[in-house]
Amino acid sequence: MKAIAENINVMSKSIGGAMKEKQAEPIQKLAKECTEAGADLLDINLGPARKGGPELMEWVVNTVQEVSDLQLCLDTSNHEAMEAGINACNKKPLLNSFSAQPDKMENILPLAAKYECEIVGLTMSTHIPIDADERIAIACEIVAAANELGVPNERIWIDPIILPIGVEVGQAHAVAVQEVLRMLPEVFDPQVQTTCGLSNTSNGAPDELRSAIDRTFLPMLAACGMTSAIVNAKDPEMMRTIRLIKALKNESLYSVSDAELK
Amino acid sequence: MKAIAENINVMSKSIGGAMKEKQAEPIQKLAKECTEAGADLLDINLGPARKGGPELMEWVVNTVQEVSDLQLCLDTSNHEAMEAGINACNKKPLLNSFSAQPDKMENILPLAAKYECEIVGLTMSTHIPIDADERIAIACEIVAAANELGVPNERIWIDPIILPIGVEVGQAHAVAVQEVLRMLPEVFDPQVQTTCGLSNTSNGAPDELRSAIDRTFLPMLAACGMTSAIVNAKDPEMMRTIRLIKALKNESLYSVSDAELK
Repeated sequence: MKAIAENINVMSKSIGGAMKEKQAEPIQKLAKECTEAGADLLDINLGPARKGGPELMEWVVNTVQEVSDLQLCLDTSNHEAMEAGINACNKKPLLNSFSAQPDKMENILPLAAKYECEIVGLTMSTHIPIDADERIAIACEIVAAANELGVPNERIWIDPIILPIGVEVGQAHAVAVQEVLRMLPEVFDPQVQTTCGLSNTSNGAPDELRSAIDRTFLPMLAACGMTSAIVNAKDPEMMRTIRLIKALKNESLYSVSDAELK
Repeated sequence: MKAIAENINVMSKSIGGAMKEKQAEPIQKLAKECTEAGADLLDINLGPARKGGPELMEWVVNTVQEVSDLQLCLDTSNHEAMEAGINACNKKPLLNSFSAQPDKMENILPLAAKYECEIVGLTMSTHIPIDADERIAIACEIVAAANELGVPNERIWIDPIILPIGVEVGQAHAVAVQEVLRMLPEVFDPQVQTTCGLSNTSNGAPDELRSAIDRTFLPMLAACGMTSAIVNAKDPEMMRTIRLIKALKNESLYSVSDAELK
């Protein structure tokens, strides 16, 4: 279970402002905190990044790399910004993301092939199916498209897409995500990796209740086979949950300090 | 996911004393608290109950039933105490437990047959195997023994036996328990139910860290198919976790109050 820190995000008020003003300090402070908290990767989410995307991505990547050696997950729908980010990265980044939406195959996926990067593939086309079988069908479609360009299964991280538990049919989606994770090992050989935007589970719930919801769902997903999650690395209880998941799956040697808040 | 409150236990200092002195009040207060906290069953654990077991069990059952309508789980290795408890119960109790240990087949299991009760079956014989396949083999043995006496699968609650995560090979046992839960639906038709002594996971860890360990493991077990657990119903965070598990498995209609501490 790898933890991908969601925190360096243009949508965050303070970080979005720092990106706009090219203030390195708040971004570096956050990158250091997420690294020290135990994140395995840092997501750099620039969103659509329509204006000055490539230059901004290059600057943020360089800024973060001055204080952290972690692998980066580049998260933007602007493929020029993505390519600039890839070229700035010291380690090959994870690209986030592509899907079976008509225009989402042609954009980021070829960059994963060209630069031999890992890439997140979302199980959605024009809509997000409630049904697990339909999500699996889309996973087959996007893995085939990636393979065709030369991206092997091992470099594909399938994201079965978590919706908020509180929205209409959100609970059915939560069940479907668990089913998809259990089905994937039967479908792909070699295995794909898996990830999710965990915080979306509690989107819409009061802030003080969100962590408890997410911390209940993550162990469930991990037990279904999820190999990573994009999480709030600044939540010490979340990072403790991840350490305990690793211990309870025997992926790391347990010590009582795993259960301590750090 | 049914919650069985572990709290009414002769090993607890205050409750053990109250049982000895036949003081109803502390026992009834605790039974009420566990009921209000959302427990589905109340475990009444008298241990070996060697001296005056039948009379004590009858008194505790009657004492608890004065304040709670919940189904009881009678937990003693004294079969005379067990039978006295069954006869005192308003609702058919769950009997805890039998196993493939040579002397554990002849004791409690015939009572489950005679009184048409549900019964917990532990996947152990003279030892607790680390291996999931061996646990399954024992499960087959005890289910066959129960069936032979007329106890059908639907009334058998298999307990794959949780060991403390901190003991030698505790992590391997944790993985085996998850594997057993995933295998059971393939093995038995009709399905058996499942349970576990969840708090054993964190046995040996400092008291203030135990809940976090148990609250990480329970969602993992639930995602693997566990249908109940014997838990500390006096831990509001544990009871919240159980409400959220039910919502995330779509076993109950989610509302934001599920995430609130009560």
